[in-house]
Amino acid sequence: MMTRILITIGDMNGIGPEIIMKALNTKGIEEKYDITIISPVSVLEYYYRLYGLEPIRGKYKIISICEGKAHIKPGEGTKESGFIAGFAVKTAVNLCRQKRYDAIVTAPISKKALNTAGFKYDGHTEMLTALDNSAASVMFMTSSKLNMAFATTHPPLKKVSELITRRLLESKIKTAYNSLCSDFGILNPRIAVLSLNPHAGEGGLIGNEEKKIIEPAINKLRKQLSGAVIEGPFPSDGYFAVKNYKNFDLTFALYHDQGFIPFKMIAGFKGVNFTAGLSFVRTSPDHGTAYDIAGKNIADPAGLLEAIKTADKISRSRNKH
Amino acid sequence: MMTRILITIGDMNGIGPEIIMKALNTKGIEEKYDITIISPVSVLEYYYRLYGLEPIRGKYKIISICEGKAHIKPGEGTKESGFIAGFAVKTAVNLCRQKRYDAIVTAPISKKALNTAGFKYDGHTEMLTALDNSAASVMFMTSSKLNMAFATTHPPLKKVSELITRRLLESKIKTAYNSLCSDFGILNPRIAVLSLNPHAGEGGLIGNEEKKIIEPAINKLRKQLSGAVIEGPFPSDGYFAVKNYKNFDLTFALYHDQGFIPFKMIAGFKGVNFTAGLSFVRTSPDHGTAYDIAGKNIADPAGLLEAIKTADKISRSRNKH
Repeated sequence: MMTRILITIGDMNGIGPEIIMKALNTKGIEEKYDITIISPVSVLEYYYRLYGLEPIRGKYKIISICEGKAHIKPGEGTKESGFIAGFAVKTAVNLCRQKRYDAIVTAPISKKALNTAGFKYDGHTEMLTALDNSAASVMFMTSSKLNMAFATTHPPLKKVSELITRRLLESKIKTAYNSLCSDFGILNPRIAVLSLNPHAGEGGLIGNEEKKIIEPAINKLRKQLSGAVIEGPFPSDGYFAVKNYKNFDLTFALYHDQGFIPFKMIAGFKGVNFTAGLSFVRTSPDHGTAYDIAGKNIADPAGLLEAIKTADKISRSRNKH
Repeated sequence: MMTRILITIGDMNGIGPEIIMKALNTKGIEEKYDITIISPVSVLEYYYRLYGLEPIRGKYKIISICEGKAHIKPGEGTKESGFIAGFAVKTAVNLCRQKRYDAIVTAPISKKALNTAGFKYDGHTEMLTALDNSAASVMFMTSSKLNMAFATTHPPLKKVSELITRRLLESKIKTAYNSLCSDFGILNPRIAVLSLNPHAGEGGLIGNEEKKIIEPAINKLRKQLSGAVIEGPFPSDGYFAVKNYKNFDLTFALYHDQGFIPFKMIAGFKGVNFTAGLSFVRTSPDHGTAYDIAGKNIADPAGLLEAIKTADKISRSRNKH
């Protein structure tokens, strides 16, 4: 059976519609996945006329939403683009929770536009977690080179330390562990946890979060998660310098730049953002709305294609485990 | 004229003595640089006997210090090892300030041992800046692949945001700019400044330090530093993913892991730590005391050799400009 995938339009004024159409017109996609797009039909029509692309209407199912709100302004986040983006996600979650679809692939949204439209979430991960009533989810980046999960998504840097609690780490790492087992089919996951402070706190001289929070959380998880190998906290500069991530199934980063700097350097733009811990599979490409190139017909659908492939792979693994 | 270089022993229980002897026994070094070592002679003798290395006594000048305190315990930071490490640095600074030497190359110290011995500094950079009565210095990593300077050295992560002020950024970037001109011979330095928050704060949605502190500092510096190109703040993950650092003479990072993760991934272990803004040149290898391998004769002197070469190169450039 083909994996049933919903693709949400994302911010219609970003590159979402363009990469969706380019990805879905790629050879072999139509036959391989059961794909439905959630978008105002007029948005798709606007862009395929603008670019002279082959229309996808007729080849794929489209769930049309919010037609009256689709005033397109390429390159500009608006209340309407935020509303349509948010509404598409809500619709997708409902359909997945009714088990009518296996996975959601989301095109990029603008947090600002989303918030302007009244969807008060920090991003996709938080919105999906809330709408799914999920007890615990974790932002997870995956690629053929490495997997990485995050304790926090993208708070301001000054908030990071106070967000890192034993409870949070235990919940996030446990969710990541479960995902490695069921979604990636790894029997005895090996997880490396990065440290918060330079030199892993240097024995408490540079911050005490390692001793007070991270090490106790790791020790507790080692007892709870059978078969898992959990190591750390590693000083993150040395960890990546010696490519230690090759020895682990998952690198667990504590905050955005700590993880995304090395992840993007290693995985290039082939990384896929996956939200682990939801009742359905959700992936997205590892880039934003790219307003600066919206409407120019130069966006690359490679990231979205990877997200579709990964959503399929994880859905299949989840059905087996 | 040969560059007159002082090498400080660092923590005698770390790999300092070993890499110093291995580096100085490397072919061509003796003839190329005018090197003096500051160390208890007995420490050097202990290690060359332990390893069966060729003695360096006779080939190089040694300023012997603290003989009575040299109770060597490889692999263990002690009050004595901290005291000798600190005293060597103090001695070196005095000699440089008397213009009897051009440069100091420091072997690694342990902050903990140093503090135990009563030298209350966060590290070499802070100690040297204080002893030199320097108005402004900046931690600077250099390699053939990229240069990087840091707004902060290694505070705990939770302190970073409050340390980042307009005044600090202006002082550090100005010092780095002056160093690029005089120490690296770059006429119109191009400097890229990284952002503090994910996505450069996303227009204020994720932290306001970009708008309130970093952007105003950059704007002011653009007016003050003639001929300089200063860009940013860049979201750091994207900056390194697209190798944007290749377009700049210097990448300015705001805190330890933000800079050291990509720096070590790009420069490998060939990076040299340089303190810009002092009245003398100071470099060191890009690694720590490595207590875990001290006394085992397996330490690699490559980093120290790079530090010696860089100290020479910078001293020569400084004499010209």
